[in-house]
Amino acid sequence: MACVEKNVEFELILELPWTRRHDFLALNPAATVPVMTQEDGLVLTGSYAIREYLEETCADVPLLGTSPPERAEIRRLIDWFDVKFNEEVTTLLITEKIMKRFLKLGVPEADNIRCASSNIKQHLKYIEYLSERRNWLGGDNISYADITAAAHLSCIDYLGDVPWDDFEGAKDWYARIKSRPAFRPLLKDLIAGLPPVPHYKNLDF
Amino acid sequence: MACVEKNVEFELILELPWTRRHDFLALNPAATVPVMTQEDGLVLTGSYAIREYLEETCADVPLLGTSPPERAEIRRLIDWFDVKFNEEVTTLLITEKIMKRFLKLGVPEADNIRCASSNIKQHLKYIEYLSERRNWLGGDNISYADITAAAHLSCIDYLGDVPWDDFEGAKDWYARIKSRPAFRPLLKDLIAGLPPVPHYKNLDF
Repeated sequence: MACVEKNVEFELILELPWTRRHDFLALNPAATVPVMTQEDGLVLTGSYAIREYLEETCADVPLLGTSPPERAEIRRLIDWFDVKFNEEVTTLLITEKIMKRFLKLGVPEADNIRCASSNIKQHLKYIEYLSERRNWLGGDNISYADITAAAHLSCIDYLGDVPWDDFEGAKDWYARIKSRPAFRPLLKDLIAGLPPVPHYKNLDF
Repeated sequence: MACVEKNVEFELILELPWTRRHDFLALNPAATVPVMTQEDGLVLTGSYAIREYLEETCADVPLLGTSPPERAEIRRLIDWFDVKFNEEVTTLLITEKIMKRFLKLGVPEADNIRCASSNIKQHLKYIEYLSERRNWLGGDNISYADITAAAHLSCIDYLGDVPWDDFEGAKDWYARIKSRPAFRPLLKDLIAGLPPVPHYKNLDF
């Protein structure tokens, strides 16, 4: 999404990191995605390094704000979603509903799912709070704060676990993200054997 | 450590985030440390936002390298230690040996401790590999890669769980970190009721 917003040309390559492919480990010994390779051979590893590199080298469309205080606020929100939301919502639901099923790790724990369903409400309230005060989550313009939040929410929304109708402000924000040309291709990315809920791809949901 | 390396004046304030102090929640609704407040009222939240803000505003002593590729490599290593090392070593040992004891959560799981003790060897080997090829972990100069790695290793070393003698290259690197004026005050920071192993504070260990 950041590459499209910044008009950076790229080609996506599917990597299954758990297969620990030899040539992939040579690129990234941590065996994690994302990895971005440049035409000159430079290898960028991890969303943090890639995000900041794109910001430093493609600065004409800023996605991290423009002043140090703005950038600090956007980075705070990136952590909010990549760490706090991830621990309190994403990891719980993805582990219970996806990983356990596909890796045959047993039946989902109802307690973990209930916990995530309760936590997500606080996060949707916080998204409402921010979007009532700002045009986008991190400030006047769309930023990595929105991209990171939307990345997590789209995974949960795929499963039908976002109570959008109880949080109109959060829903309005997500509708604006969904209508970005940069976001729409992501909504076509499907898990084989597990279709998304019917409203997942709709711009009007 | 970054503030001392960069000659930034600061005062440390002890916060017990689990008490959820009202004034602290007003500064950071995530209720996590670190938080840095500036004299002009600006509030910076989380190590990511603080690190990048210090780099942007106190650039005369760079701790993130100087070119975009160097910075990407240092940021990759920050993630290596803050995510991978943290999951594979720090969290396991701190949970089993500290949190369970102080929060009275039951007896430590021997399997988790064994797993961390095995994982740390791969990380020490990687530190050796990097320090044989570079002056510091991220390149020619000391950087946040070293600071982040040392932060994690010092927690584990406090418990006596780093097999330094089997990894001379990693030991040499850590001895150089320990002798930095910026690092020495951290070695005096103790957990009440749990003294560190005898070699913890020694520059010659």
